[in-house]
Order: sequence, then C-alpha cells, then structure tokens
Amino acid sequence: MVGMAVLGCGRIGRMHARNLARHPRARLLMVFDILAEAAQQTAAELGVKIARSVDEVLSAGDVGGVLVATPTDTHVPLIASAVKAGKAVLCEKPVDLDLERAQACWSEIAGGKPRVMIGFNRRFDASFRALRERLQRGEIGTLELAVITSRDPAPPPATYIKASGGLMRDMSIHDFDMARYLAGDIAQVHAFGANLVDPAIGKLGDIDTCSVSLRAKSGALIQINNSRRCVYGYDQRIEAFGSNGMLQAGNQYATTVESWSAERTGAREPVLNFFIERYREAYTSEVDAFVSSLEEGRPMSPDFADGLAALRLAVAAEESLRTGAVVGLD
Amino acid sequence: MVGMAVLGCGRIGRMHARNLARHPRARLLMVFDILAEAAQQTAAELGVKIARSVDEVLSAGDVGGVLVATPTDTHVPLIASAVKAGKAVLCEKPVDLDLERAQACWSEIAGGKPRVMIGFNRRFDASFRALRERLQRGEIGTLELAVITSRDPAPPPATYIKASGGLMRDMSIHDFDMARYLAGDIAQVHAFGANLVDPAIGKLGDIDTCSVSLRAKSGALIQINNSRRCVYGYDQRIEAFGSNGMLQAGNQYATTVESWSAERTGAREPVLNFFIERYREAYTSEVDAFVSSLEEGRPMSPDFADGLAALRLAVAAEESLRTGAVVGLD
Amino acid sequence: MVGMAVLGCGRIGRMHARNLARHPRARLLMVFDILAEAAQQTAAELGVKIARSVDEVLSAGDVGGVLVATPTDTHVPLIASAVKAGKAVLCEKPVDLDLERAQACWSEIAGGKPRVMIGFNRRFDASFRALRERLQRGEIGTLELAVITSRDPAPPPATYIKASGGLMRDMSIHDFDMARYLAGDIAQVHAFGANLVDPAIGKLGDIDTCSVSLRAKSGALIQINNSRRCVYGYDQRIEAFGSNGMLQAGNQYATTVESWSAERTGAREPVLNFFIERYREAYTSEVDAFVSSLEEGRPMSPDFADGLAALRLAVAAEESLRTGAVVGLD
Amino acid sequence: MVGMAVLGCGRIGRMHARNLARHPRARLLMVFDILAEAAQQTAAELGVKIARSVDEVLSAGDVGGVLVATPTDTHVPLIASAVKAGKAVLCEKPVDLDLERAQACWSEIAGGKPRVMIGFNRRFDASFRALRERLQRGEIGTLELAVITSRDPAPPPATYIKASGGLMRDMSIHDFDMARYLAGDIAQVHAFGANLVDPAIGKLGDIDTCSVSLRAKSGALIQINNSRRCVYGYDQRIEAFGSNGMLQAGNQYATTVESWSAERTGAREPVLNFFIERYREAYTSEVDAFVSSLEEGRPMSPDFADGLAALRLAVAAEESLRTGAVVGLD
Repeated sequence: MVGMAVLGCGRIGRMHARNLARHPRARLLMVFDILAEAAQQTAAELGVKIARSVDEVLSAGDVGGVLVATPTDTHVPLIASAVKAGKAVLCEKPVDLDLERAQACWSEIAGGKPRVMIGFNRRFDASFRALRERLQRGEIGTLELAVITSRDPAPPPATYIKASGGLMRDMSIHDFDMARYLAGDIAQVHAFGANLVDPAIGKLGDIDTCSVSLRAKSGALIQINNSRRCVYGYDQRIEAFGSNGMLQAGNQYATTVESWSAERTGAREPVLNFFIERYREAYTSEVDAFVSSLEEGRPMSPDFADGLAALRLAVAAEESLRTGAVVGLD
Repeated sequence: MVGMAVLGCGRIGRMHARNLARHPRARLLMVFDILAEAAQQTAAELGVKIARSVDEVLSAGDVGGVLVATPTDTHVPLIASAVKAGKAVLCEKPVDLDLERAQACWSEIAGGKPRVMIGFNRRFDASFRALRERLQRGEIGTLELAVITSRDPAPPPATYIKASGGLMRDMSIHDFDMARYLAGDIAQVHAFGANLVDPAIGKLGDIDTCSVSLRAKSGALIQINNSRRCVYGYDQRIEAFGSNGMLQAGNQYATTVESWSAERTGAREPVLNFFIERYREAYTSEVDAFVSSLEEGRPMSPDFADGLAALRLAVAAEESLRTGAVVGLD
Repeated sequence: MVGMAVLGCGRIGRMHARNLARHPRARLLMVFDILAEAAQQTAAELGVKIARSVDEVLSAGDVGGVLVATPTDTHVPLIASAVKAGKAVLCEKPVDLDLERAQACWSEIAGGKPRVMIGFNRRFDASFRALRERLQRGEIGTLELAVITSRDPAPPPATYIKASGGLMRDMSIHDFDMARYLAGDIAQVHAFGANLVDPAIGKLGDIDTCSVSLRAKSGALIQINNSRRCVYGYDQRIEAFGSNGMLQAGNQYATTVESWSAERTGAREPVLNFFIERYREAYTSEVDAFVSSLEEGRPMSPDFADGLAALRLAVAAEESLRTGAVVGLD
Repeated sequence: MVGMAVLGCGRIGRMHARNLARHPRARLLMVFDILAEAAQQTAAELGVKIARSVDEVLSAGDVGGVLVATPTDTHVPLIASAVKAGKAVLCEKPVDLDLERAQACWSEIAGGKPRVMIGFNRRFDASFRALRERLQRGEIGTLELAVITSRDPAPPPATYIKASGGLMRDMSIHDFDMARYLAGDIAQVHAFGANLVDPAIGKLGDIDTCSVSLRAKSGALIQINNSRRCVYGYDQRIEAFGSNGMLQAGNQYATTVESWSAERTGAREPVLNFFIERYREAYTSEVDAFVSSLEEGRPMSPDFADGLAALRLAVAAEESLRTGAVVGLD
C-alpha cells in the first residue's frame, strides 16, 4: 500500500486524486492546493486530509509518492523538493516550459536516482500501448514511418494560450513523446506552422495548426499533424508502417451505434471529447503504473529524461518554424 | 466464339445484350422482342440483327445460346423450344410462377441433358462467391447459421406487384437460391410476412416484409429478412456463422468517401441502388460463366433444377405464411 | 443514500457487490451466501458485514434494497420474502424457470405495488440503450424489423446446462427481453432449434443453436439467432430497420488497434469476452438505475412483469420447437 | 466521334487503347510502337491499323487526338509534334524528367492554345474526385490540412529505378499533383527521404521512403508519405481536414468479405494491387474526360501547366532533400 498526496486540485489534479482514492494498492492521504477552496472540495469528496503547506506533505512520513498537478512553472521546484524529501513523484507534463530550467533541475537531482514519472498519459492508452507492444514484438517488421494525428476539439481561451508556452510545448509535446515512444530517439526535426483556426492565437504570436516531420535515429520517419480545432471531437490516432505491414490505433466513442438513412450510411456520433473522457482509462492505468513501479522498485517510465527529451523536441521544432531549416538533435 | 441471341429487349434484356456484345468470346448475332421498337433500339445500339420471330432465332445455325429475358410466363415455353432446337439457354429468374408448370417443363426436357442456366445473378457477385468459396474451403468450419439480408430500395408499382407472383416468388426467391448456394438443400421452412411498407401491396393480397427461417438438410439454420423498402439503398448482405468463425459480405458503394462533422463521423453515402448498379459486375460474370460453360462443355450452374428448387421453397414459404406451420420439403 | 444487501456471493453477486460498494449514493451494508466462504471473501474485500441468515438481512432496518444473485430456484421465494419485508429488490434473471411458479409469486405480491427490478443487464448497455432511445425518438420512423444476434463464446459444462432450464429460458430469454425492449409486446413466436455445437448438450435434451422469429403486436418482425459457441468472442449485436432507416449497435473491443499485413487488412482482435467484461458498464448502470429509482420513488424497469413476459416467450418458443407451429401469446 | 491514335503499346498504352476501343464516342484508328511486335499485338487484339511511323499518325486527317504512352524522354518531342500537327494530346505523366526541357516545350507551344492533357489518373478516381467536389462545395469549410498516403506494393527493379528520375519525379509527382488538385498552388516544400526498403535503390542514389510537407498559397498544410513497399497492397488514401470537419477517401478491395475467427475479427483481404487494378475505372474516366473535352471544345484538365507545376514541386522537394531547408516556389 502506497501513501499518496496530490498537489494541485484543479480539474486534472482532482481526477488523479479520485483515481488514487479508488486504487486498491494506494492510499490517498492528503491533498494540497494554494486555493483553499479547491483543496477543500477534493478533500471533502474523497474524505482525505487537507495539507496546509507543501512542506507538510513532504515531511509526512507515510507519504511515499506525490502527484504534482500544479501550474507548470511550479513543476521543477516541486519535483526537486519532493525528490530531496525522498518522495517518488508523478508530475504532469510538461516538466517546464524552459528547457534550461528543466535541465538544471535534472542536473541537480539526477545523481540521487530519483523516482520521477512524467504524466504523458497517452503512453497508457490501451490501444496505443497495444500498438507499441505489437510493434516491438515485430508484428510489422521494422518501423519505417508513422503518422500521428492529434487534434483538440476547440481552441482554448487567450489566457490559456498566453501561459501555455505555445503549441509546440503545450500540445505537440504529447506527440513528440509519442514519436519517441514508438520510434526511439529523434535525430532531426522540421516543422511548418500556421494560424488558421483563431486569429487571437496568431495575435499572441502562437500557431494553432502544424505539420511536423521527424527523422528518428533508427531511420524511421514520423509525421505529426496538430490542430487546436476539430469539430468532430478529440481526434487521436496513430498509423505505424513497417516492412511487414501497418498498425492503426484510433478514436473512441461513447457508443457503437451506427445509423443508415436516405442521406448517409454507417454514421457514428462524434468521437469522445475531451482528454478527461478520451483518456479516462489511460489516466487510471498511469496512476496504476506509478503505484506499481513504486511498490515493486521498478524504474519509472516515462521518466524525467523522457520529459526533457520531449521538451527538447518542442524547442527544436520552434527553431525550425522560425528558420525553415531542419534542426538536428545530438 | 459462341453465337448468341437475346429474346426480350426490356431493361434487363438490353443489359444482357450489352454484356454479350462486349464479351470477348461471344458474338451477339440477333435480338428479338415482341415490341418491334424495343428490339430496334437494342439492335441499333449494338449493331446486331433484329430477328422477326422466335423461330428465326431458334433455327439460326450460328446461334448456339439464347438468353431469355422475356416476361416470366413465356420462360417455360421458350426454354422448351430452345432446348428442342438444340440451343443452350440462359433464362432470367424465376423459371415460372407456377410450380407444376415448371416441373412439367422439366419432365419434358430433362431427358435430353439440356444446357439451361437460370439467372440467379447473386451467385456471380464477387463477394458472395468469395464468401461461399471460403466457406467451402473450410475457413470457418461447418456452417451452422446464416443471416441473409435483402431489401429493395423502394416498392414497385401496383401493376408490377400484380404480375409478380408475390414477394416470395418474385423477391425472396433470390434469397432461397442464396440459402441453397450456401447451405445446400433445404428441409424445412417457416415464414412470417407483413404488410408494413405500402397498403396498396396489402390490398393486392401480397406482403412487403418478411422473416423467413430455413433448416437445411445439413442441419444449418438460415434467416432471411426482406423488405420492399430500404431508404439507404439496395441492402444486400450475408453473414455466415460456422464452428470456427464468421464471414460477412456486404454492400457496395459508388465511392469510399467518409465524412466527419460536428454531428456525425465516418458517414458514407447511401449504398448502391438498384440491382443493375449493385450487380453490374455480377451480371457480366454471369454471362461469362454461361459462355464459358457452353464453350467448354461444362454443366450449367445454377441450372433448371436449381430454379425449380428455389420456386419450391417460395411455394412452401407461402404455405407457411398461410398456416403458421413449418413446411417440410422432401 | 440507499442501504443495500447482496444475497449470493458467486461470480455475479460479487460483481454487483463491488458496484454497489463503489456507488456514490448506495451503501453496501451486508452480504449473505449459503457458502460461508463466499460471503466471507466478498465481505472482506469490500469491508462489509456478513449476514448470518436471509432473515437478518430482511429484518435490518437500514437495508432498503436487496440484490438477489442466488441460484434461480430461490429467486421467487426471496423476492416474495423481501417484498413482504418492505424491501426493494433487484433480482438476477430469470425470475424462475417455472412459469406457473413465477406467476403465482406475482399474484401473491402484485397487490402491494412491490418495487422489484429484474436484472436484464443488456437494457443498460449504453449502445443498446442509445439505439432504443433514437428509435423511440423516431429517427428511423416506425420499427419494421429487427435482427438480434447473441452468441456466447463457448458452451458451458453439462452440469450448468442441466440446471439451466434450457437454451430458451437461460440464454434466449435475454433476447426475448431485448425484443420487447425494442418492439413492445409480442404476439407470435416461431423457433427452430438445433444441436450443432456440443453433442453433450443434445444428450441432455437441450439445443445450442436457434433461429427464432417473433411478430410484435405493433406488427414489427424480430429475428433472433443464438449459439452457445462463438470463437471470436461474445457476439452481441442489434440491427433495427425502420421506415426511414436503420440503426446498428455492435460489439466491443479491448482496443481500437487494426492490423494490415500481406495476408489481411483492417483486422481487429476478438471481441470482448464474456458478459462480465462486455457488460461491465451496463452492470454499473443497472445498479445505478435501481438505486436512483429507489431513491426517487420512480417505478422499477424492467420490472417483475417484464421478467414474466420474457419467461412466457421462452416457454412459447419451446412449444414452437416441439410442434413446429407458430405459438400465439394473448 | 473522335478519331484517336495511341503511341506506345506497352502495358499502359495497351490499357488506354482498350479503353479507347470501348469508348462510345471515340474511334481508335491506329496504334504505333517502335517495337513492331507490341504494336501488332495491340492492333490485332483491337482490330485497328498499325501505323508505320509517328508521321503517319500525325498526318492522318481523321486522327483528332493522340494518346502518348511512350518512354518519358519522348513525351516532350511527341507533344510538340502532335500539337503542331493540330492534334489534341493525352500524355502520360511525367511531362519530362527535366524541368528546363519541359518548360522549353511549353514556351514553344503555349502560344497556340494547345489542347494537351496530362495523365494524372488519380484526379479521375471517383472517390478522390468526390472528396474534392465536396471540399469545393464547402462541406468541411476551409481546407486546413491534408494527409496523402501513397505506397506502392513493391519496389521496382533497379533498371526501372535508374531510368525513373528518382522517387520524387517518378512516384511522389502523383501526390504533388494531388496536393495541387486539393489545395491549389503550393508555396513551400520540405522533404525528408530515406532508403529503408531496398539497398539497391540507395546504391543508385535514390530513396524509397519519404515524408514531405507542403504549404499551399491558401495557407493549408499538406503531408505526403510515400514508400516503394507496402505488403498489404497499393495503399492510396487521402484525409482532408477543414474548419468544419474531415473527409477521407480510401483503398479499394476486390470483395467486401470480412472474416472473424478466434485470432482476429473484421479482417479483409489485401487492398487492390496495383495501379492498373486500383485505378481501372479512373483510367476509363480519364480517357472519357479527354474525349469529352475534345468533342465539346472545353479546356483540358489537368493540362500541360499542371504537369509542369508537379514537376517543379518534385525538383523543389529534391532540393529540400539535399539542403534540409524549406524550398519556396514563386
């Protein structure tokens, strides 16, 4: 049984807290949020204690793991403190918006073999996971090319965009991690970006649509396409082409119902929308992977280095957007 | 090269004439229709001769095969005459609306090993044919149950219904043949019928919707569902369940385009509509099978006996409709 | 908050107990099983009390509802006792294997407006429910015909078959309920049965494969096909044809992965197998519907009368199997 | 009625000759091939004359249109001669492997309003055409991004590769044309290439796998992925994302049969393989479009300028492959 605390009781923190509260081998002991009300709501719902400070959490002897779901700029200091306090950490993505800051954190803690997992939830989606396992078992031979489609239902408000770090660090970062999950380390990046969805996003200097090409060190090519808008739901798909075949993993639906009429046939409802619904089971599996790794002393995956690598790809893609040139990773 | 004549230049006769005219190993020599205009139109289009009488056709030495696409009540006499004149015959279904009359014809000609093929076009559909071949190769083990879905786009006019012989002999007869094609001879029939589509059909004493259950001599069960109306096109499907799996064969579309919108996803256009379009390639294959069998001296299939067997099933199903009881075939 | 007790801690009782323990508005207070060990296991897992007798359960003032998951022949007496004790009941299907006994129970309790729900879990499947709601909203006009496919993955052992009441009362009864759920009361039944899967089943006088045709009082026709074996998983599908279109609800899969190879394309894994997995969410919704109906004083649905009606259809289908004739319901 | 001649009686020339011979408003008058045997075979099969020289073809008064299916390096001189002789031309892609040579040809003939159509067959595929028409009708709003998947079944022999002009000019050129067909003129190109399929291709200095990103002048982004190998058949698909939805057009199959077994479900056969089969109807429509445009005096489409534009994109993509930089088109 692993004692857990949740830092940050916003939408995603509350979801994680619920999953931990329900987990058969975890005990959610306390929650914390800078907004007392948010902490109170979650604590009341789940019948757990409210910590008055981060320090109280980190000094609690029965807390073995800390789930960090606070604003992005607090990730690095919270990870560092938690690790120093001997806690395992499951931190929401991204590690940080600033690559140097994230690297500095890593330099500081890496020596101590910290147990840090980064919340790239898609790695825990049953379908993406099965696709990768089948890929690794050699079902389609060597991976040669992959197409990752990832489109959000609707653009977030300007306030979100402003603090987001931009499309690459906020949204495409999931796809960079997915590319690495499928194809391993990446050697080269090229990105085209555009502001086609919401002029407000362009005014903030950001893009809302992109086409990214990656070349993995293995030789495989990966194509990513992203948009901040997708009217038919949260479009999340992968196609992996290998020397012996192809694997696809696709969208999820609330029901299997299809309709036939004089106008159209085989029509389904829009796909699940948004990440809380689409990745509901993935988030449960993610927390389970963290708890199991912690209990069994297995290495965390994806770990801090994976978080760094994805951020590095986002930064490289931004450079490519600016220069039009391919950017190499070492 | 097989010399051919077409009797009957209505919609379906003209289609067959075109297929014969295009066939690399057939030569369409002449056409005949009681309506001079119909014959003229087809003859002009295809550059072939107009026969002035059936006799002219049957006495032409270079005519090896006759395609009969005349009204149903002329099928039996035309088959008999053509066979006596030494011609091979490809006759549209049904053999006749009257079982006794059809049987009498058969008694009359059977001794001479007549080469007669009945136009059950669905046997020549590439998908249904592939399904059956895979079934016979044992891909799903022993056939245990099949579901045949067959629904016409829209009810025909009352004049058609009146002369049609009723749903069972006109429409379900295709499915009775398909049941035999898949499962072999049939031992028992039960049928429920209803008049749900068009009250005019009910007034004529006919039904437009039915649920038929068959038990094959092999033990397999077959379910047929028919309707005279299907707003999304001509619905033509088969599901075959066996001890080791299931095979489906489905509808056909003009394009592969699917659309995703805020309202619905994966929507296709209506299915192909109607038999001339849906079975376009099947009709070509049917004529090809006839020509090849004739050229190579192979037995015709489906033959007159198959036509009789399907008609017998239609008659038995009608009895079941009246009595509510299962009707046995010997 | 509804206080609940579970009678019967076998596989399905335990599942219900877990769902009740997790339900936000229910409190699972106690469990009972004639096998002390089974009760103990469930009680320990969920941290609830073990009742020493049914009487203890029925006399507990804080128990508002009783979930009955005991062997079929105890359903009727337990329902009667629970109702007399003023408890609401959620009872697993079937009500009883004996129609007279079930009717007698109903005569005894019906006057008291008992709150009894029968566990026809498929009514709570999100896809079947959505299909029915769309049907009732008129999306495809009037229902004219439905095809219900329901095939178990593998035949149960002989001991199960012996006590099962036979295919109709044990398995097809779900489909009879589904037919009523979609089309309302049924007027006529015809059934063909066969022993194609396991000779042991035939030796016990039972069948393992069937084709059933129903005619609803509304005029709609329904085709049911069942088998005790389906190698590709638990096949559970509905097709509903109406005057303006068709709705399908289909199988569920563990992942969305499809594979393409030199041999085949678009291949998915076997479908979910078996009812505990396939109807996992349906069982949760069923318990939720019971709790909500109880809390809000709404009528239970499906209720005892629905359980009786489905049983009556099973008995009628058996008569049809014997006689070959259509059997009418009043 | 349009009098036609075919130059080049190889595999693709013969196919075009057959389509012309069957076309109701064309008359195939003569064929020519430098290899007498090839010309003879086609002439005999279709019952047409063998021209002894290109001059004979171009000076024949009854020849209104010339179909050019000769080796690529003869396209430019044949187009020029035919245009000067007052003939309309349908020329196989590519116009030429050398951009300057193609441009020089255009400069030479453009003034005379030549009727030249380039054989980009995919524009005539019913599904791609329907997708584009629906796009242009605004069904999914503004086009924002498209993914074009185009993978050949198996790499061609080294002799073919040597003369092919390389992946971009030989194979991707179809996708460049498709990108223009969907999104209009292209502003920028980036390409990643790799030699993953056949080392022999790499030894010849060519690639066999690529990921290309385009930015259209309209702002839309296009992703192309190509491979010289695809074990499950000739993979030809388009996804077009717009502000209001998405349209897909997909692969084609010989049958609709799907199979379910203990190992897998919903499995189809490999997709149609190769272009002669996959684009059979497209080639027929292409010839029909040429004949109709000629008869009705409508402009040819795609025309010589389209052929040039696609070639220009291929050349730009090659530059991007070499330099790693985005290449702009004016």
